[in-house]
Amino acid sequence: MNAPTQLPDISEQELYRIDAYWRACNYLAAGMIYLRDNPLLREPLQIEHIKNRLLGHWGASPGLAFGYVHMNRLIKKYDFNAIFMAGPGHGAPGVLGPIYLEGTYSEIYPNKGEDEDGIKLFFKEFSFPGGIGSHCTPETPGSIHEGGELGYSISHAFGAAYDNPDLIVTVMVGDGESETAPLATSWHSNKFLNPVRDGAVLPILHLNGYKINNPTILSRISHEELDNLFRGYGWTPHFVEGSDPLAMHARMAEVLEQCVLEIRRIQAEARTSNHPVRPRWPMIVLRSPKGWTGPKEVNGHKVEGFWRAHQVPIGDVRSNPENLHKLEAWLRSYKPEELFDQNGCLMPELKALAPRYTRRMSANPHANGGLLRKALRMPDFRDYAADVSGPGKTSAENTRPLGKLLRDIMAQNMNNFRVFGPDENSSNKLDNVYEVSKKTWLADFLPEDADGSELSPDGRVMEMLSEHTLEGWLEGYLLTGRHGFFSTYEAFVHVIDSMFNQHAKWLAMSNEIPWRAPVSSLNLLITSTVWRQDHNGFTHQDPGFLDVVVNKSPKVTRIYLPPDVNTLLCVANDCLQSTDFINVIVCDKQKHLQYLTMEQAIKHCTKGIGIWDWASNDEGSEPDMVMVGCGDIPTKEALAATVLLRESFPDIKIRFINVVDLYKLTPSSEHPHGLSDKDFDSLFTIDRPIIFNFHGYPWLIHRLAYRRTNHKNLHVRGYKEKGSINTPLELAIQNEIDRFSLAIDVIDRIPRLRVAGAHVKERLRDKQIECRHYAYEHGVDLPEADGWTWPY
Amino acid sequence: MNAPTQLPDISEQELYRIDAYWRACNYLAAGMIYLRDNPLLREPLQIEHIKNRLLGHWGASPGLAFGYVHMNRLIKKYDFNAIFMAGPGHGAPGVLGPIYLEGTYSEIYPNKGEDEDGIKLFFKEFSFPGGIGSHCTPETPGSIHEGGELGYSISHAFGAAYDNPDLIVTVMVGDGESETAPLATSWHSNKFLNPVRDGAVLPILHLNGYKINNPTILSRISHEELDNLFRGYGWTPHFVEGSDPLAMHARMAEVLEQCVLEIRRIQAEARTSNHPVRPRWPMIVLRSPKGWTGPKEVNGHKVEGFWRAHQVPIGDVRSNPENLHKLEAWLRSYKPEELFDQNGCLMPELKALAPRYTRRMSANPHANGGLLRKALRMPDFRDYAADVSGPGKTSAENTRPLGKLLRDIMAQNMNNFRVFGPDENSSNKLDNVYEVSKKTWLADFLPEDADGSELSPDGRVMEMLSEHTLEGWLEGYLLTGRHGFFSTYEAFVHVIDSMFNQHAKWLAMSNEIPWRAPVSSLNLLITSTVWRQDHNGFTHQDPGFLDVVVNKSPKVTRIYLPPDVNTLLCVANDCLQSTDFINVIVCDKQKHLQYLTMEQAIKHCTKGIGIWDWASNDEGSEPDMVMVGCGDIPTKEALAATVLLRESFPDIKIRFINVVDLYKLTPSSEHPHGLSDKDFDSLFTIDRPIIFNFHGYPWLIHRLAYRRTNHKNLHVRGYKEKGSINTPLELAIQNEIDRFSLAIDVIDRIPRLRVAGAHVKERLRDKQIECRHYAYEHGVDLPEADGWTWPY
Repeated sequence: MNAPTQLPDISEQELYRIDAYWRACNYLAAGMIYLRDNPLLREPLQIEHIKNRLLGHWGASPGLAFGYVHMNRLIKKYDFNAIFMAGPGHGAPGVLGPIYLEGTYSEIYPNKGEDEDGIKLFFKEFSFPGGIGSHCTPETPGSIHEGGELGYSISHAFGAAYDNPDLIVTVMVGDGESETAPLATSWHSNKFLNPVRDGAVLPILHLNGYKINNPTILSRISHEELDNLFRGYGWTPHFVEGSDPLAMHARMAEVLEQCVLEIRRIQAEARTSNHPVRPRWPMIVLRSPKGWTGPKEVNGHKVEGFWRAHQVPIGDVRSNPENLHKLEAWLRSYKPEELFDQNGCLMPELKALAPRYTRRMSANPHANGGLLRKALRMPDFRDYAADVSGPGKTSAENTRPLGKLLRDIMAQNMNNFRVFGPDENSSNKLDNVYEVSKKTWLADFLPEDADGSELSPDGRVMEMLSEHTLEGWLEGYLLTGRHGFFSTYEAFVHVIDSMFNQHAKWLAMSNEIPWRAPVSSLNLLITSTVWRQDHNGFTHQDPGFLDVVVNKSPKVTRIYLPPDVNTLLCVANDCLQSTDFINVIVCDKQKHLQYLTMEQAIKHCTKGIGIWDWASNDEGSEPDMVMVGCGDIPTKEALAATVLLRESFPDIKIRFINVVDLYKLTPSSEHPHGLSDKDFDSLFTIDRPIIFNFHGYPWLIHRLAYRRTNHKNLHVRGYKEKGSINTPLELAIQNEIDRFSLAIDVIDRIPRLRVAGAHVKERLRDKQIECRHYAYEHGVDLPEADGWTWPY
Repeated sequence: MNAPTQLPDISEQELYRIDAYWRACNYLAAGMIYLRDNPLLREPLQIEHIKNRLLGHWGASPGLAFGYVHMNRLIKKYDFNAIFMAGPGHGAPGVLGPIYLEGTYSEIYPNKGEDEDGIKLFFKEFSFPGGIGSHCTPETPGSIHEGGELGYSISHAFGAAYDNPDLIVTVMVGDGESETAPLATSWHSNKFLNPVRDGAVLPILHLNGYKINNPTILSRISHEELDNLFRGYGWTPHFVEGSDPLAMHARMAEVLEQCVLEIRRIQAEARTSNHPVRPRWPMIVLRSPKGWTGPKEVNGHKVEGFWRAHQVPIGDVRSNPENLHKLEAWLRSYKPEELFDQNGCLMPELKALAPRYTRRMSANPHANGGLLRKALRMPDFRDYAADVSGPGKTSAENTRPLGKLLRDIMAQNMNNFRVFGPDENSSNKLDNVYEVSKKTWLADFLPEDADGSELSPDGRVMEMLSEHTLEGWLEGYLLTGRHGFFSTYEAFVHVIDSMFNQHAKWLAMSNEIPWRAPVSSLNLLITSTVWRQDHNGFTHQDPGFLDVVVNKSPKVTRIYLPPDVNTLLCVANDCLQSTDFINVIVCDKQKHLQYLTMEQAIKHCTKGIGIWDWASNDEGSEPDMVMVGCGDIPTKEALAATVLLRESFPDIKIRFINVVDLYKLTPSSEHPHGLSDKDFDSLFTIDRPIIFNFHGYPWLIHRLAYRRTNHKNLHVRGYKEKGSINTPLELAIQNEIDRFSLAIDVIDRIPRLRVAGAHVKERLRDKQIECRHYAYEHGVDLPEADGWTWPY
């Protein structure tokens, strides 16, 4: 990279060229929306050149292209390593244009070459069935941010910049998007970026003033407020405001150059002194008209600089000859004949304005992060095993050894791995990780932080009380080729339901695109689970995230419910090395019974589901019933229920199954992990009652297993939305996943037990009431329930 | 209300009294966490007085109580009408204390009287099984904001203030909460509050510096940045900073009084001039130590003023005699003997500091809004009916007549009804509502707004590009006794999954509390649905919100999928008059076929599910198969499939069922709307194949209906996460909900059709391919598919 020493200095000729390049972008953006033929207007525009269905967003496109071409100038001048994100991703025409013009599009999609036929097909396929999406979809070279759902551009940009000291992430932020909740808090990401070791994010707030039908808030507050707001967020705003293209080019060229030079100055200073402080990073406020350079007025209504420019600025061109004429005049105003040569190729003097090879933002490998991804160096997870002398004899905090594993992964993969959690890594018992890496913190320090706050500018544990921002950072980090692990409270993972949805969609699409290299999976540990939120009460009890997960493509979703330390380690070890999935691991942080030695755990997790022989007494014969545990507490209660039953009915034959990999339940035709019907039947029998004690909402199991042979005998217990302030056992009782309810249920379902079982049921009910009373009396569970162990 | 003319003037004696009252609050907060006996420390503290399980959040409590008692002073002085919201709701001890001290708690829960026994039980039950929650739960008098999930305090506060000109909503905002996405954007709510007709929100940012294990961002930026940030958000911040109680009381008394007087001045000016402009409303930054007045240090570690004060500041009092002693010294530092009389009642001179009757913030009827709720005046929804000459003959935009109904409801219920939507009410075809009420807008205006922006300070249509803020406003508006309607894009309603969850939990709890009066239902129209997001592509296709909804209590959730205008009007009419539900209505905004006259629609919606005789030809006999449509597009495709079948097999007997009320499918034992098995069987038969064409993810139907007799023959089609840029028919084909796929499916499932049907299937497949090609060629659907009508 050349040392950025010069101050802005740009000739009029260069400005004219930049403007011409930008006109080419704008021409392409408009062409994408309108034209299926006559792409370079070599003939007068006719109705038959117009698409049947006019789709696309014009409004944000010129501004996005404006930012892109100006960034190109500086990449050329200084050989910067930069990528580009379009917050308002529905302005894709403004991004696709420059990508096509710099040749990347044609390299990847050779049928859309750099000639008239190529442009024609490019236009035709935009927003066309089976064609080019109207957002910055995974098919878009250089995109790692689709912008379909708004709000994540800044957090994605920071995720990309972390541990990429050389990279400048240019991110155009929509002023509509800026009203969303996730975007509003993500401006604070600057307190988590270290100028010594991280790259830079250069936000360009695209203040074009309007959303679909409304002005934007940020465009309708005073200049002073806007300036204050960004200073308050910790940025130094620079304003580029106006509508005259040449004046704006001059101003933008100057300001953008100032900003990137300021970024380089900040970085050089921090790196020379090796003293990371939080600078007031520069940002740009680009106030320009919505639908800039488009038609000023259509059918008597203002369009350019107004919300009417949002999508298709002239809608009735097929039915209104005057407007067809207006469209033609508008398109010709870009002078395509000056921009493209006889073959339809961009004029060489304009082509020369774009960077080359991987310096093109559309061809930068950081935006196809799998290309740069290095596999994690993994310690042997078996070294972290809990010592299990026998099943169900001892207790341990399930997540703590995982924290040690994460610590050692961190130590071996500095610069390439981060741990994320909303102020909860300690609460979630993962705090061993701080032994090698503190929490990233660039805000102020106080002396007392020395005693246990675990903060450092050099940390790589990311903690902010915003699940949205963390998820966005992590996605950006993964999509640029790195690795990460995110733990969060179960009830509040719903906060990022929609982000999960969008990332799953991104991955599902990416996986079908040959040129997209695989990226690391997004690993999500859901902890502080429902069955240990008895004391926090109803608001903290919601295991329903899994119901959201199973709606997404089976190609990208994985769900695990390891019941103890060793199974959790096994599962995490696999997940951390996988690519292109979202791995959801549900495991509570509190002390729980330990069941399997590491050797047993590996075997069990490899199968994902299996009979626990030591907990079964059917000994290969057909059992009277099948008891299933899935999740830590449900497994414990299910085991305790089998003990109650075996004590009361010495001849009862129970098979005990534990499920770690939830998708084992689905048919193999629907998920690659699904068991074959034969295997399912051999585990669950074809006619014996199954009591399935599940971690989450019980209906989920039916949803997965409704086609299985023995579904009619499948009885699922789980969280039924019954909660208040309670003890763990009482919470279990209210939702009928407790040992007593399960045992009573079994008695009712095995005909030969029913009569003899009447008094047993009565005894169980008495004991259940006793537990209840004990909790209400003492505020804790009965010692024998709380400290229950497997007796055999 | 007295005219607030005086300037702050407070005697030293009054300050001492306020401090004493606050000490009583803090004593109670600590007592709740620790004591099960000896509540007033009449004896030396012993281990047996200590709870077995120490639970609760001390850290935020003193600050919350501080805000509460100072607000009390001004309510007394000026007779203000005010309510109180605690953003960090887990600081409930700091709110429960003042509520108990002003007598409300004992009035509502007489077993916890204002005496020693009452205090003892109050202490014991806090965070105890079956007892008092550790958040500001619905059981908490005066609470309409639980604060279990963080981030919604400001938006709830604004919702409460709208159309309550007299009300001051005091809201303590946690600095941890301030990092959340929803909170960060909700500060902009001040652009949507009209000082003439709305009340005021007075935020007190509770800057106590720490979360669970971390400092907060806002406490670790410069004073200048903090000041800039809030000025940028449009507020005028006032700072109250320190730790010495008496100095802080003096400062807070002065500043809080200044702020409420400034609020009254702003309001008086706006109301006198009747010229609503956006003032820079005052807010307070209260910088005080976390766990203020608690132990300074425990086991050698800083506690007061540090994150260690977050929950139980001294954990090991049962095992560590020194710390038991420290706890006692701490508790005695509040001098309970000076605060409570012989009976355990607050001293009369302190009691006199609290407001009385409904001026107590804990007894203000606005915080039990059902008490104030007036039923909506409803126009006759039948007047808005679409003219339907015959079933499936004509098309109309389904949501437009609803917009007219909403318009007229708005006209008849000004001050009592608002419409909410994220910049999408026009896009969602509800824009007729602007004829009587514009969009609320207090930010700047431009001349061009006159042409179609529909903005006004006097509007009551709430549009901001933040689903979180809208949902928060609506919840606050409803919980204070008003009515509302929220429409939003289907894919992005997932943005507020977690807010839905929390509100459903709030309602489920509230409904069991006798003193909570019913509030209006939260009505949510989900539109721009998956089957019309073909052109926006994959990111905009997600009908999974319903899967989240069905996890919540059947007592509070309702789901409707009206297929046309008249059914939508019927459903909306019911929903708008209901109480204590969340009504989810799924209906697309585009042009769709119309099926039922208003009379038929009323009949159909009353049943919620039913056979459409005109679309069936089984004529009371047992049909060959049952075809089901649920949702607009799925119903159309299912109908078209029956036509294809009847054309090909003249003797086939098809029963056509349409489902409007989704919960009809669940067993009647599980949801009050559920059909009895008998009724279900008589509709769906016990042995005929059922093809169920569903709007959403197909598994949801199995989840609801898996216990039904004929479940084994139930074949559900729905969105299977197959999407890209397409036409509607092509999108349907990819997910197999199209007419051709359905018809082929039926042929395969009726044995007698299989052989004869082979060539029919081939023909259908050819036609399907033709449609596909046509779309890929022309960018639109085949005219006969696009304009298909019911032919009989």
